[in-house]
Parts: sequence; structure tokens; C-alpha cells
Amino acid sequence: MIQFFAESPEERRMLSAEESAHAVRVLRKSVGDIIHVTDGLGWRYRCVLTSASPKGCAFEVLDKEHVANEWPCRITLGVAPTKHSDRMEWLVEKAVEIGVDRIVLLRCAHSERKEMKVERLRKVALSAMKQSLHCYLPEVTEITPFAQFIVACGVEEQKLMGYCDDDCERRLLTDICLPARDTVILIGPEGDFSPEEVTAARESGFEPTAFCEARLRTETAALFGLQAVHIINMLGHRRYE
Amino acid sequence: MIQFFAESPEERRMLSAEESAHAVRVLRKSVGDIIHVTDGLGWRYRCVLTSASPKGCAFEVLDKEHVANEWPCRITLGVAPTKHSDRMEWLVEKAVEIGVDRIVLLRCAHSERKEMKVERLRKVALSAMKQSLHCYLPEVTEITPFAQFIVACGVEEQKLMGYCDDDCERRLLTDICLPARDTVILIGPEGDFSPEEVTAARESGFEPTAFCEARLRTETAALFGLQAVHIINMLGHRRYE
Repeated sequence: MIQFFAESPEERRMLSAEESAHAVRVLRKSVGDIIHVTDGLGWRYRCVLTSASPKGCAFEVLDKEHVANEWPCRITLGVAPTKHSDRMEWLVEKAVEIGVDRIVLLRCAHSERKEMKVERLRKVALSAMKQSLHCYLPEVTEITPFAQFIVACGVEEQKLMGYCDDDCERRLLTDICLPARDTVILIGPEGDFSPEEVTAARESGFEPTAFCEARLRTETAALFGLQAVHIINMLGHRRYE
Repeated sequence: MIQFFAESPEERRMLSAEESAHAVRVLRKSVGDIIHVTDGLGWRYRCVLTSASPKGCAFEVLDKEHVANEWPCRITLGVAPTKHSDRMEWLVEKAVEIGVDRIVLLRCAHSERKEMKVERLRKVALSAMKQSLHCYLPEVTEITPFAQFIVACGVEEQKLMGYCDDDCERRLLTDICLPARDTVILIGPEGDFSPEEVTAARESGFEPTAFCEARLRTETAALFGLQAVHIINMLGHRRYE
């Protein structure tokens, strides 16, 4: 299945110029062909093309289905952008493929990159959603100050703060992470979180956590943490039945 | 800690030209500085620089320690190279960071890429080993025909074959993967394994497996499978105690 994206498919009944060019020039779609369109808000529409121009395809909706995410909780990844933007694009692609609800870009004390072109990351997220057949488009936020983010997290959430300092008392992610719990994963910049940030995060209910014993790059750690949460959720019914 | 690589450190007592240039030009190492060197065979040497030229640094070994991998089993990733070589380089980097013993490049019926510059991938693996502070350099094989590889796997290994066909009866990785078992993970090319390959793999003891419910790209699936094996190993003592 190839999945297209369109805003408000039932009202607008049009693909964007970019999606239309892909449909017509690359995939050779023509009038009468069936296409699948998601709105990024949880719905997948089965549609028939009524015009097929690379500048704008029109369609009629035949039927629609709600496609829930396959994980049972809300997962937020708060991450300080890496120095190299390609590593950040890679992370967003993989996180969306595997499944995430929200990616919050953090500005931390040790951040080497204080700004980030969020539009580019949102395009990557959209493309990865289509590719992986998810129907919810994860939110990618503008850069947010660390202190502002940690106080805004809900009290009931499971809060895991990836932290590398071997002198800090930390438990292993696999020893503390529970399934079916809304979860926030925090990943610091290449220079790690500052001690003041760790203190503030603890006060907001975050637990400094070791993800595994190897030393992982920022983006690898973020993906490892996210995958661990998914796998623990997938195992959940076995471990707790 | 910065980790350098050298072959036979106790006999040769030299860094290669590339490692020397990095030590002297980038890290500003000079005579008398302590450096850590791994041989990629499980040992880490603490050394003192006795000459510091960017063309070749000499050192004396002060002491050495054996650094075991943190996972309790041997993990092999058999993967058909992706069409785009940068996705393969990315996979090798991440797999080595997270931990793998051997990466076997497979030539499959539906492979879009039949050849691959293995030397480049080996450089990526070496760099990722140093970065993640592992001391075993995973093997990256030359491209191997699929049929040859599957019959060469040991009978006692846990054999997981990632397979996307929804019409094929498959169990979920998290329902079948056991901790502390030598494991082979098979990942096919973008066009998936052929039905004949699935039949042959079954006869060699591989079980067609769904990794998760989302549709993942080849390299994402490979990393997801590898991380699942690690997390199941990390959880193992909890689930089976």
C-alpha cells in the first residue's frame, strides 16, 4: 500500500502539488485509480482519482477507517538537537517509523545547537508517517527551553531521563520502565545534561536512567530508549498477566 | 574516555597514520599523555605516548584489561544491503553502537544491490566500536548468497527471519525471542524475501517473524530486531527468575 497525505480529505478532496507530482510522475496514477489518503489525525480514506494532474490531483472519498496507533500509551521524546542536523533528521525518521506521539526539541545548557529548522524535520516526520502506514502525524515542536518543558509534563507520566554520568546513581531503563504508561523520554545534547538540569528534572519527577551499558551517541540513545519503551509495551501482557 | 584502535598493541606499540593524525592534530595529544587503545579482540590497553607524530605515534603499554561484551549471547545480523548505501552505513554504525557480533551481507533473490563496498562498512564499524567503548570489533562479511548463509547457521541458534507478508503465518518477535540464546536475525531486501527463500529458511530452522505492527524500512527493521534482542536479554533475569 502507498499512503498519501492530505488535509481535510472529505472537504478539500485534493492532493497538494507535491503529493500530486509524486502520484502522477513517479507512481503513474491516473483517473479511476484507487489511492489511500491519511489526514494525519488518525483516519485513512480510500479514494478514487477524478483528475490526475501533477499540479493537483482531485479525488472522491469512497470510505474511511480509523487507524489507531498500535502502542497503548502516549510517548513523548524530548531531545536536544544534535550538532549535525542530518543525525537529527535520521532520528525523526526512525522515531516516527517505530512510533512516537510527540518530539519536543530542547534547548539545554550544554546544547551545541541552539536553533533548528523545524520545518525540515516536520517534512521528514510526514514522509516517515506515510512510509510506515501510521495515520497519526507526530507533533514536532519548535525548540523549547529545558526548564519550561520539564515543568509542563503531566504528573502521572513515567519520566525517564537518559543520563551518562557514571558517578550519578541511576537505574537501568529495563529495570524501571512499565508498560501501558504514558512516558516521557529525555535525551540531552552531546555534552549531556548539566548537574543543575538533573536536579531540576528530579524535582519534576524525572529519574536519571541508564539505557544500556554501551556509550551511545545522542540520536542512538534516543532511538534505543524509544524502542525499549515499545518492546516493554509489546512484552507487557506477558510480563504482567 | 577516547578509545584508539591498534593491531597487536603489545608487539607493534604504534598507532596507524590515521589514528595518529587524529590523536595529534584533533585531540592535541603529546608525549607523556595517557591514551586508551583497543585491539578489537576484547582487550583495552592503557598506554603512554612516547612519540607524537601525526604520521605515527609510538606508545608503551602500562597495563591492559579484558572488556567483555555486555550481552550474554552471540548475535548475528544477516541483512540484504539497501539500495542506498548511506542507509547501510547508518545501520552498521547503529548496530555496532548498540552491540552486534557479526553482520553478514546477504545477496537475495529480490536484492536491488548485489554488490557492496565492504571496506567502507568495516571502517564505519571500527569507528562505532571506538565511539561506543566496545572492545570487540564485529565482523562485517563480504556479500554472501542467502542459501549459503542459512545452511551455515548453527542448529542450536535462535533463528528469527523478519518477514513482511501478511498472508504468511508469523509470530511476533516479542512472543518468541528468548534471552541468553545465540541469535540470528535475518532481514531481507526492500522487495522482501522470495517465497522460495522463506521455504528454504524454514527448512534450516528459521521462523518467519513480525517485528512490530508498523511497516519498517529494511534498515529500521534490522535495528528494531537487534534492539529487541538486547532488551529481551536485559529483561531476561526479571522475566525468568
